[in-house]
Amino acid sequence: MSEKLYFASDYMQGAHPAVLQRLMENNLVPSAGYGTDAFSEAAREKIRRACSTPEADVFFLTGGTQCNALVLTALLKPWQGVIAADSGHISVHEAGAVECGGHKVITLPQQGGKLRPADVEGCILTWQKDQNRDHLVMPGAVYLSHPTEFGTLYTLSELEELSRLCRVNGLTLYLDGARLAYALACPENELSLGDLGRLCDAFYIGGTKCGCLFGEAVVFPRHDTVPHFFSIIKQRGALLAKGFAAAHQFDALFTDGLYGRIGEPAIRAAARIREALTEKGYPLAFDSPTNQVFPILDEAQYTRLTASVKMGFWENLPDGRRVMRIATGWATADAEVDALIALL
Amino acid sequence: MSEKLYFASDYMQGAHPAVLQRLMENNLVPSAGYGTDAFSEAAREKIRRACSTPEADVFFLTGGTQCNALVLTALLKPWQGVIAADSGHISVHEAGAVECGGHKVITLPQQGGKLRPADVEGCILTWQKDQNRDHLVMPGAVYLSHPTEFGTLYTLSELEELSRLCRVNGLTLYLDGARLAYALACPENELSLGDLGRLCDAFYIGGTKCGCLFGEAVVFPRHDTVPHFFSIIKQRGALLAKGFAAAHQFDALFTDGLYGRIGEPAIRAAARIREALTEKGYPLAFDSPTNQVFPILDEAQYTRLTASVKMGFWENLPDGRRVMRIATGWATADAEVDALIALL
Amino acid sequence: MSEKLYFASDYMQGAHPAVLQRLMENNLVPSAGYGTDAFSEAAREKIRRACSTPEADVFFLTGGTQCNALVLTALLKPWQGVIAADSGHISVHEAGAVECGGHKVITLPQQGGKLRPADVEGCILTWQKDQNRDHLVMPGAVYLSHPTEFGTLYTLSELEELSRLCRVNGLTLYLDGARLAYALACPENELSLGDLGRLCDAFYIGGTKCGCLFGEAVVFPRHDTVPHFFSIIKQRGALLAKGFAAAHQFDALFTDGLYGRIGEPAIRAAARIREALTEKGYPLAFDSPTNQVFPILDEAQYTRLTASVKMGFWENLPDGRRVMRIATGWATADAEVDALIALL
Amino acid sequence: MSEKLYFASDYMQGAHPAVLQRLMENNLVPSAGYGTDAFSEAAREKIRRACSTPEADVFFLTGGTQCNALVLTALLKPWQGVIAADSGHISVHEAGAVECGGHKVITLPQQGGKLRPADVEGCILTWQKDQNRDHLVMPGAVYLSHPTEFGTLYTLSELEELSRLCRVNGLTLYLDGARLAYALACPENELSLGDLGRLCDAFYIGGTKCGCLFGEAVVFPRHDTVPHFFSIIKQRGALLAKGFAAAHQFDALFTDGLYGRIGEPAIRAAARIREALTEKGYPLAFDSPTNQVFPILDEAQYTRLTASVKMGFWENLPDGRRVMRIATGWATADAEVDALIALL
Repeated sequence: MSEKLYFASDYMQGAHPAVLQRLMENNLVPSAGYGTDAFSEAAREKIRRACSTPEADVFFLTGGTQCNALVLTALLKPWQGVIAADSGHISVHEAGAVECGGHKVITLPQQGGKLRPADVEGCILTWQKDQNRDHLVMPGAVYLSHPTEFGTLYTLSELEELSRLCRVNGLTLYLDGARLAYALACPENELSLGDLGRLCDAFYIGGTKCGCLFGEAVVFPRHDTVPHFFSIIKQRGALLAKGFAAAHQFDALFTDGLYGRIGEPAIRAAARIREALTEKGYPLAFDSPTNQVFPILDEAQYTRLTASVKMGFWENLPDGRRVMRIATGWATADAEVDALIALL
Repeated sequence: MSEKLYFASDYMQGAHPAVLQRLMENNLVPSAGYGTDAFSEAAREKIRRACSTPEADVFFLTGGTQCNALVLTALLKPWQGVIAADSGHISVHEAGAVECGGHKVITLPQQGGKLRPADVEGCILTWQKDQNRDHLVMPGAVYLSHPTEFGTLYTLSELEELSRLCRVNGLTLYLDGARLAYALACPENELSLGDLGRLCDAFYIGGTKCGCLFGEAVVFPRHDTVPHFFSIIKQRGALLAKGFAAAHQFDALFTDGLYGRIGEPAIRAAARIREALTEKGYPLAFDSPTNQVFPILDEAQYTRLTASVKMGFWENLPDGRRVMRIATGWATADAEVDALIALL
Repeated sequence: MSEKLYFASDYMQGAHPAVLQRLMENNLVPSAGYGTDAFSEAAREKIRRACSTPEADVFFLTGGTQCNALVLTALLKPWQGVIAADSGHISVHEAGAVECGGHKVITLPQQGGKLRPADVEGCILTWQKDQNRDHLVMPGAVYLSHPTEFGTLYTLSELEELSRLCRVNGLTLYLDGARLAYALACPENELSLGDLGRLCDAFYIGGTKCGCLFGEAVVFPRHDTVPHFFSIIKQRGALLAKGFAAAHQFDALFTDGLYGRIGEPAIRAAARIREALTEKGYPLAFDSPTNQVFPILDEAQYTRLTASVKMGFWENLPDGRRVMRIATGWATADAEVDALIALL
Repeated sequence: MSEKLYFASDYMQGAHPAVLQRLMENNLVPSAGYGTDAFSEAAREKIRRACSTPEADVFFLTGGTQCNALVLTALLKPWQGVIAADSGHISVHEAGAVECGGHKVITLPQQGGKLRPADVEGCILTWQKDQNRDHLVMPGAVYLSHPTEFGTLYTLSELEELSRLCRVNGLTLYLDGARLAYALACPENELSLGDLGRLCDAFYIGGTKCGCLFGEAVVFPRHDTVPHFFSIIKQRGALLAKGFAAAHQFDALFTDGLYGRIGEPAIRAAARIREALTEKGYPLAFDSPTNQVFPILDEAQYTRLTASVKMGFWENLPDGRRVMRIATGWATADAEVDALIALL
């Protein structure tokens, strides 16, 4: 269909066949709107079981920025802001969605794309000890992504420590799981869905990048963490009339453990590409074990490779080179990886 | 699949077969994200042609409240509000989405669900002549829906007059076309897509209720009516990573004129139901020619009918009776209509 | 200084002599900023005593719209709106300040400028019984003004009933006391400061129109009704660096009961003017006992009177006549009233 | 009145005698509200002349955070943010007011409390060259303070370069002059009011810290830079009913050049204190020529000095020492400076 190789992102194709099949087979079944139907409840229940959070409130939204903005706006009090890594998606790549909702993103330096618990604690203590703290933005929540924007992973002890810090200091902990399936499929990953359910106040399970045509599942492990969240979703223009269309997809992903293994081809592909790049002497901007690979390309390499391969632009370096992003996905085929490696 | 008859809404089922087919056949074709792909551009171009607006900016969003909130927020200046009928969707059923974006909905009395041009003119003049007008909310836009929330239709001369009033007085005119296909399929309808393109500053072509799994197409007939609307969409959490998934659907709807006739079965079905209700002596709350029928039911009728038929709740009347909504759709079958009529 | 008579408003002059005196005598006393000084605490304590609310949180702001917007935004949850009369200041004359803060003003018809308890109850019940209520704006607070925008007064039983309705249904009750001193000085008034403290969740005691150079005192009878309100004030740009400048003024107003009698000259003057207008056959738009009088003037009367008298414009009537507002104040002199009456 | 020495801030006392005098002498003169009176226009005209901006729009507000939030919100488009030093008042000490208005503060490293033109240019170019820039917050304005939060001063060539960068790249330049009088009175200062009028798109002339009881004068050198700013002020709760009360004060400050010399005692006092601190070996956190001095105190020094001297807290250093702020003002007396120096 095209002579190009496509590694620009993990959201270049439609739905995983099992997901599409579910949409097709239920296409004409009449269902109530707005996620009040039985399909939606069944999908929510499967997610509750997978996360070991039997009381959880689960909502299906359409995209990651939407989840981040709505959940953080709902969790934060008007005088609070959210702590995030300066490389965090909400800090950089959401066109100011959190600020648009009225809240400051309090950025801390990233290390490998991650927040360090010590930095978070320092930020909270600095606020607490400042004699003018009522004139400052109070840290009210912590935002993490797993995998991070750099493809890296939090360890279980890091998440436990961040969760403990939040609870001791009265902050809420929110985790952005846009690419969560690629963490779950990664041998280095230590965090299970149950760990998220146990340690976070809210998180979302990514669908758009992990096999869905669209859709993310927001999980609040404790019931009524945010009262009237349904109305908040409606008010922010995020309520799907056909909520069942998202539910069918998540039901498929949470049937027979598909979500836990859907990312495996992507992890294998990324590992091969990473190895090949390293062998051929391309420096990598970040050391990540998941489905994103970040080679640094000089002008000649950039020109040559982008002639045949669609990659994502990441950033310009001061020396003129470019960090690019190669993303694999659930649909990446071995032959595509072979072809890419041959071109390097 | 169920012994119930389903007339609760026109968004109870998935996608029209032609739309679903398009999603399936393109499911694995790699495409760029965020609507920057060729499929999206092709769908936009078909919409431009259908509306006779070759310069139009077209954006695919996911729902009606989202369209209304984003477009109105973008069109209005901070000190302006939007004029709407007191029965308008933005006035009543969007959980305060417009106000959440910082703007007042200036409500005027509806007549058959419609704004009267004279009322709109009166509202604008009252503001202009008020010596304290700088302390008031300035009317900055007019919101219409077509069909209205009561299923009624604006005439061409009404729309022309509203458009003229807006242009003379410096307001923008925005039309909510959530159920536009049901207007286009209705013999009484006078407004073509070209009329909307000629007379409105912005409108959206409904997909969710008109054959799509999800999706609405926002049209700004004049290029750059709202600069940087892409970033506004992103910032409000409304940007689809897989924009092509909406584009495939709209491309199907705008191929071979499908959008113009997709509503026909619904219009025929509604006409039959309306006739049967009238024959059997049920009063109708509104006199509407499109796909929504609003019978007034007493307690006994309500109990008996809702045992077998899913209808929408509309409102409680002071005398204890209920206005209910029977909605037909592109997927309504003759047999379902027969069965419903038999039950009345 | 001018040959005109000034009855345009009750905020045309500076401060009451006792208030100005207090500002002058403390002008060079060094004090801590932001209302954290001893003068501010002393003034707050006097207000607590006057309202019989020993635990109250009291804050000094600079204007009425600011109080209304900040307090309502702080009291309301994101999915809630505030009930107000359609003639209420927040409904009409604040340039959309409440909506700018993200909330809908749910307007009910006024009767003599007042909300009727039965209408408020009806509004709450309608929401509660609506099967689609999660798509509606939930009534979360009730806004009253006393005196109202029409100069009228709530009776004690009306306020008790509104308070009861709010408490039973989980709403908060907020009272705008921009002209409260003119109620307190009015023989018809039934509401004491203690009644407000007992029956409201928040209210403000007007200073700008009642003897101050600027300033209003917001009272939350229960401590921590709104946590971190100090930071909210700062964030909304309403925190006075020199909070003591407002405190000095309120201290003077609440010394020796000045606030309770400062409005007396205005009430006497308005009564005389009202009587003279009636005698001379001018119709009055509203029947109000406080310091505002609303004659209806035809074109000839308007031209003749406004040549010599500054009045406020209220509204244009459909028949071309104008409702004007004559406002008296704490500084209105008998001679001015004599002169005005002579002109009628 | 107190045995303490007061150097906590430059807003500890009321109004300069000439300012208070003006308030007293006009106290009972009736004037129109909301700044529509002749006194307000006269004061605005004096400011226009002082700034050599005959077409300027001038508005009187009550505080610095209010000015910053309102002006920046009005200047920025929804998709834009404002560039500021990470030490800027809007970045740190306004409780998130800019974000509360929906916009991101894009922070750059400060150098001596100042933005470097090269950093600003780099920030703009980075956005322009980023292939994903529509997903980022677009830099739309630059925020400066003069003097800065560290008491430092921009040079004329720095301001010219920042102005040029803004104009070339389509950004607006806004200057926070909370302490502008202390710059104007400082021998090192290179920026005249005329320079601000020529180089900025908006700025405010500080009153609260520079001789007023309250009040700041916002200046837009070009007429209609922000249309309907009056309504925006009203909507944000910042409109003074008694606008003349601010105008009287600014009229006094701009009579006979008072504003240009009102800060002189403060500058002399600060210079003496700075010299004494240096002589006695106290390190200073910042090298500033204006009315703020920032000694670094160890625990013993802190305990001893704060027993007798009110200072402002600035920040805790990692080594446990504290940066404190000694602020002088227009009312600082030589004897107070003598007493302070004796204590060091």
